Amino acid sequence: MTTATKASPDDPAVELNGHGLKRKKTATHSNIDTLLERLRTHGNPALHVTPDHQIELRSTDVPTPSPQEALVHVRCTGICGSDMHLWHRGAIGPLVVDRSCILGHEPSGVVLAVGSEVTNIQPGDRVAIEPGVPCRKCWLCDAGKYNLCEDVKFAGVCPSAGTIRRFIAHDARYLHKLPDSMTFAQGALVEPLSVVLHAIKQCKGSIGIGRPALICGAGPIGLCALAAAKATGAWPLVITDVDQSKLDFARQMFPGIGTYLVEMSKAPAQCSEEIRALYGCGPRKLETAGPSKTEYNAPSTVLECTGIESSVATAAYSCRRNGTVMVIGVGRSIMNNVPFMQLSLSEIELRFINRYSDTWPAGINALAGGQVMNLDALVTHTFPLEQAVEAMNLCADPATPSIKVQIVDDTEIEI
Amino acid sequence: MTTATKASPDDPAVELNGHGLKRKKTATHSNIDTLLERLRTHGNPALHVTPDHQIELRSTDVPTPSPQEALVHVRCTGICGSDMHLWHRGAIGPLVVDRSCILGHEPSGVVLAVGSEVTNIQPGDRVAIEPGVPCRKCWLCDAGKYNLCEDVKFAGVCPSAGTIRRFIAHDARYLHKLPDSMTFAQGALVEPLSVVLHAIKQCKGSIGIGRPALICGAGPIGLCALAAAKATGAWPLVITDVDQSKLDFARQMFPGIGTYLVEMSKAPAQCSEEIRALYGCGPRKLETAGPSKTEYNAPSTVLECTGIESSVATAAYSCRRNGTVMVIGVGRSIMNNVPFMQLSLSEIELRFINRYSDTWPAGINALAGGQVMNLDALVTHTFPLEQAVEAMNLCADPATPSIKVQIVDDTEIEI
Amino acid sequence: MTTATKASPDDPAVELNGHGLKRKKTATHSNIDTLLERLRTHGNPALHVTPDHQIELRSTDVPTPSPQEALVHVRCTGICGSDMHLWHRGAIGPLVVDRSCILGHEPSGVVLAVGSEVTNIQPGDRVAIEPGVPCRKCWLCDAGKYNLCEDVKFAGVCPSAGTIRRFIAHDARYLHKLPDSMTFAQGALVEPLSVVLHAIKQCKGSIGIGRPALICGAGPIGLCALAAAKATGAWPLVITDVDQSKLDFARQMFPGIGTYLVEMSKAPAQCSEEIRALYGCGPRKLETAGPSKTEYNAPSTVLECTGIESSVATAAYSCRRNGTVMVIGVGRSIMNNVPFMQLSLSEIELRFINRYSDTWPAGINALAGGQVMNLDALVTHTFPLEQAVEAMNLCADPATPSIKVQIVDDTEIEI
Amino acid sequence: MTTATKASPDDPAVELNGHGLKRKKTATHSNIDTLLERLRTHGNPALHVTPDHQIELRSTDVPTPSPQEALVHVRCTGICGSDMHLWHRGAIGPLVVDRSCILGHEPSGVVLAVGSEVTNIQPGDRVAIEPGVPCRKCWLCDAGKYNLCEDVKFAGVCPSAGTIRRFIAHDARYLHKLPDSMTFAQGALVEPLSVVLHAIKQCKGSIGIGRPALICGAGPIGLCALAAAKATGAWPLVITDVDQSKLDFARQMFPGIGTYLVEMSKAPAQCSEEIRALYGCGPRKLETAGPSKTEYNAPSTVLECTGIESSVATAAYSCRRNGTVMVIGVGRSIMNNVPFMQLSLSEIELRFINRYSDTWPAGINALAGGQVMNLDALVTHTFPLEQAVEAMNLCADPATPSIKVQIVDDTEIEI
Repeated sequence: MTTATKASPDDPAVELNGHGLKRKKTATHSNIDTLLERLRTHGNPALHVTPDHQIELRSTDVPTPSPQEALVHVRCTGICGSDMHLWHRGAIGPLVVDRSCILGHEPSGVVLAVGSEVTNIQPGDRVAIEPGVPCRKCWLCDAGKYNLCEDVKFAGVCPSAGTIRRFIAHDARYLHKLPDSMTFAQGALVEPLSVVLHAIKQCKGSIGIGRPALICGAGPIGLCALAAAKATGAWPLVITDVDQSKLDFARQMFPGIGTYLVEMSKAPAQCSEEIRALYGCGPRKLETAGPSKTEYNAPSTVLECTGIESSVATAAYSCRRNGTVMVIGVGRSIMNNVPFMQLSLSEIELRFINRYSDTWPAGINALAGGQVMNLDALVTHTFPLEQAVEAMNLCADPATPSIKVQIVDDTEIEI
Repeated sequence: MTTATKASPDDPAVELNGHGLKRKKTATHSNIDTLLERLRTHGNPALHVTPDHQIELRSTDVPTPSPQEALVHVRCTGICGSDMHLWHRGAIGPLVVDRSCILGHEPSGVVLAVGSEVTNIQPGDRVAIEPGVPCRKCWLCDAGKYNLCEDVKFAGVCPSAGTIRRFIAHDARYLHKLPDSMTFAQGALVEPLSVVLHAIKQCKGSIGIGRPALICGAGPIGLCALAAAKATGAWPLVITDVDQSKLDFARQMFPGIGTYLVEMSKAPAQCSEEIRALYGCGPRKLETAGPSKTEYNAPSTVLECTGIESSVATAAYSCRRNGTVMVIGVGRSIMNNVPFMQLSLSEIELRFINRYSDTWPAGINALAGGQVMNLDALVTHTFPLEQAVEAMNLCADPATPSIKVQIVDDTEIEI
Repeated sequence: MTTATKASPDDPAVELNGHGLKRKKTATHSNIDTLLERLRTHGNPALHVTPDHQIELRSTDVPTPSPQEALVHVRCTGICGSDMHLWHRGAIGPLVVDRSCILGHEPSGVVLAVGSEVTNIQPGDRVAIEPGVPCRKCWLCDAGKYNLCEDVKFAGVCPSAGTIRRFIAHDARYLHKLPDSMTFAQGALVEPLSVVLHAIKQCKGSIGIGRPALICGAGPIGLCALAAAKATGAWPLVITDVDQSKLDFARQMFPGIGTYLVEMSKAPAQCSEEIRALYGCGPRKLETAGPSKTEYNAPSTVLECTGIESSVATAAYSCRRNGTVMVIGVGRSIMNNVPFMQLSLSEIELRFINRYSDTWPAGINALAGGQVMNLDALVTHTFPLEQAVEAMNLCADPATPSIKVQIVDDTEIEI
Repeated sequence: MTTATKASPDDPAVELNGHGLKRKKTATHSNIDTLLERLRTHGNPALHVTPDHQIELRSTDVPTPSPQEALVHVRCTGICGSDMHLWHRGAIGPLVVDRSCILGHEPSGVVLAVGSEVTNIQPGDRVAIEPGVPCRKCWLCDAGKYNLCEDVKFAGVCPSAGTIRRFIAHDARYLHKLPDSMTFAQGALVEPLSVVLHAIKQCKGSIGIGRPALICGAGPIGLCALAAAKATGAWPLVITDVDQSKLDFARQMFPGIGTYLVEMSKAPAQCSEEIRALYGCGPRKLETAGPSKTEYNAPSTVLECTGIESSVATAAYSCRRNGTVMVIGVGRSIMNNVPFMQLSLSEIELRFINRYSDTWPAGINALAGGQVMNLDALVTHTFPLEQAVEAMNLCADPATPSIKVQIVDDTEIEI
């Protein structure tokens, strides 16, 4: 478990079974020491963020896996908006960069060696990596809500080291085998997809076959949400954004959907009426005696992927009576201008999520089986690990629009 | 249905069966005309509210029931906070006093006669009256959400006449027989109880046996919520208010509960820590690396009965991770200072309700069977119909604290 | 509503608005009488089933629609397995052929005229027809469960006339407009699709993106269930049947799925182990101390579409711990050999459905938007109305395998 | 975790903190060795069951707790029907007595010492003991369904030793502190109560305030179910049994409930009509055209506590349309005569449970707070540990009717 101390090479408990007769893909080194020694020759550069808002690539040790861990060569890590927040703001809500920390939590890679107690994977396995390792001891873990574990060690959030480096040791329970048909880039996309899979799972069937849904925000999460909503059978689908080029991208990727360009000068209630018109709905008629005969056609589920105040309000006004507004985006600690009376009179469920639980196997199944459409188009830029700082700079540069930037490492490592 | 035109006495469709051989409690008049004529001698004074914020008792006609309706002698109507809003503000959100309208929507009474198509009740039946008559034609009615019907005719909300008068005609489907053991005062309390029964039903089991719950606000709805929460088996229970005397009243009525006096000078986050301490919880530890070991004991369900911004925020901060905040109270159209990050990180469901559906039979069962404790103590003042204006004035007078004020009519009416 | 008396042509209440200025597709006849008179020249042959197990085509009157009804030219009706039961057994459970009755409940058609109170459709509209007309007065209708209404008038079930005829009058609320892109054959397929949409809706999210699911039975309902399961994103998918040709058909229609040929000589527990192996699961290990390490991969949802005892048992044994077995198929009144201990120890929900509620709009959306794949291949045979008896005979003939047989009527009718 | 090897007294990892400065209730022995040595003087007699259906009291070692475990003096263990099955049949479904095993899984006791990693309890704490220790590593544990863990070590089920002995070592996570107000007898009753609390939690709100419910079987579990159903606010309540004396007992304990004596000569459908009549329902009308006007009053939730075929069938026929039949009782591996068509047409959820998860804190809260009524009357017989065999014999003797028999040990043990 997470309390296990890292084993020293002398510790007999670390009978790493990254070798031996039982393995199809046999590791060729005689023991872990040899492997670690060899890996050290490759170096382990890691992208650090500091409390004073600097980012830099620094060399780090190659970690030694505990009995429950695996040693993984990280082949790809996507950069997330939250990485930008940790860099520029130094915090996301209570998650604070109070010391130098390695960034990265959207990873995939190759297993190099496994601890003595690991049975679910073996060296050579290509894996998508679930970045959060919960305590598995608290009542939230017991209750099936390990995403809410207060003791979680979440890669890339202080003080847990992230995955923008070459080698990591990670609890093997949270390594998920990729089928041969999936690339490392796709494996890394399971993380943002997981966010929306978790959100949709919480909707408990309110989103589904032939039911209209609305997605607010056409960034990487919004586009994953659109792909996932489509995969549930929801239809018709509309996506919103303040940036027409993002909407154009969405429409190209998802033919047949509707798009709505949000003008910040318009009030949420007005935006919502224009959005509802795309579903064939008349305006809400709360203010008058007469009914809105077409309320039925309004989106019964709204996946709000921006966390922006006006967008949440627009989501609430757009939602059908008795519908669900699922707020996936995170934003400021405090939110104002919540349309309370609309939520009350329409009895709308306002739901929130925090990360994910038990989504990797489903995400991999769905991507491999084509149930969720190929998301490769989201990856607009790729940088080698050595250029991780440049990757971050590009993400921060409004002059070079990007959707998903990934940092890859194609260094050849012999197992 | 609600679209039925009122029948004239000459209309053969109005074969009112408020008489005849099939009835146990036989009506003695030979026909409806005779009855109506006799009732007119009693007069039908009704409490009106006007767009210019006046209230007055005015005489009205005795209504003629349609084939689906019953003619009812209203024996009791409770005054609700929303009646005060309609009077003083002239509106509750989109519900506007745009013409003179009769108030009252917490009624009970005696059936005097029934329309030709009525089979569920008969003259002489004592009934609790569900004030909203939905259209039963729209998709929301079809979906089991008749409380959200956009065409509902809700007694006491413009343009539908309320029940603070002597005689009303009401769709018989929404008249619910009272057992002999229940008083008219208790029958009228089924309406505020229904609000919380509906709220609890929407909680889908999150509130229940031995699970801690919090009630915000110790007004009539808060006290009904406390009684209902107790009836679900929830325990321990804490109730909050800004008024110590209300808390004292609650503690007297519900021995063993905890109470928390809200000081408006304290921030919601601070109040929540003090509230959580009553459950044996330490403070939330979102800001630090370490976990809150006692989060488990925090209330998993919060019934927020004030609709006040700071109270909703306190509810959100007090709620256990993965819990439910059910906002029963209504307030302003727009709400600010919603603790967004707390809701997100704790994955709290924020739910809202609008009135009720299918709660009267359950409410009557539970009150008659003693599952929900006797609520008589809530009724602090009683006025005869003729003093309805005085009743409203008392409710508005902070110098004479009241919980539930009821307007009764003990006029003897022969069926 | 259902209590409305059929209007006579002289009744001024029947101001049929199948004409006039407001309509885009103007009806050209001056009044309903003229229309009905003209329709009578086409005749209204109807397929009757009798208590003594005969079927025959008999001429019937052209019905006059009530104010809430529309007159519809039925263009297509699919034949259902239950039609065969009503014919050969004279009953399905308590639904008994106790008098001569017109068959057919999977219809689509064209609206010819509408009653005076109809606003949702107009003459010329192409519609899919929901065959059940609930009372909309009972508590089940009020509770959003109109599919369970005890007073439902369900076309094709005694004493309500079915749709295998040329002209029907049907409550307009249950006529659902088809987009131009959908054929009448597709419109008629919305009915069997609705059965599985309702089943999936009751699963409340247990079936979904990347979650394994099993479908038992590859008949028309099983294939619709497979299409719908695929539309929810469930994956991997396996379908079972006793007939290899049906499995071949399924695999051709849904590339990538797994199939399992049920041999009746094998016990359900054995079949389930072979089925589970297709998902990469080892056998259940209830009998031994050791755990089944791959239980996770077993289907979490099973859609049982045969209603056959051994298949339900196989479904129960195949299902993952904590999963859902949804029994869609209907069969005998009493079922034996239910694996009680397996259901208990695995805490499996065993669910059942009866028809559907609120599924047509979603079904039409999903078929029109391509969310549910094109089902045209299911229709293996088509007969004109005049050969309805031959269509039934073909369905009953094991020598001519069929999946879905539809009866169509392409008679040109001028509105 | 459960894989931890028992520490030897020499192992420094066993820094048992059953002593020292941090404890309020200080242990007086200087170390665990001294304590264990002293305890051995009391002996540790344990009730064994053998594969050849013998029971006998044999002396056993005093166990040494692992770092996560506590050493507990068992003060009370209730005897369960399943203990009788293990004795007489040698199995309950797949749970087989394949070696000599100690019985007992309804325990309470006093903590004597705790392992070095234990923080939730301390020596001197009085505790109710949750008998199952799940692996906390598998996907079912991760999913919040630890009751379904395939690797659970469940006290009293081979090969895990039960609690009918003096001293046990048990994972401290599954020891739950009792308030001073609760007796050991009450602490031991939390186990059977937990079964029904888990069942009710799975009902997700279908049972609740003022909703009618039916309990089948008036044995210990049935009576706990009645107490718990009452605690949810359900009303009216009816309980069934084949034994009039059990019904009399129930009625004495729960005034106001209805009782129904099941005569085995009557078919389930007939029993159900008589049961429904107690709720004021007419007979089901599936066989006729007309509706059952009073179906509304039928029990919407049935807690079936016998596991007997005819009782499950009666439950299904008695249940309201759209209701839930929760099968708590366990019985034979295979069940026949399940009323399939009734379940289908009425769309009844048939649910099952296996033990419980996260019920002890709620059960203790509810018993301590009086939300669930005092269950002391259930304990009809008490035996000292030394007479455990006599206790079992009494349970097996039909001539001495008992409800709950408890084995207690009041030996004074100094900590």
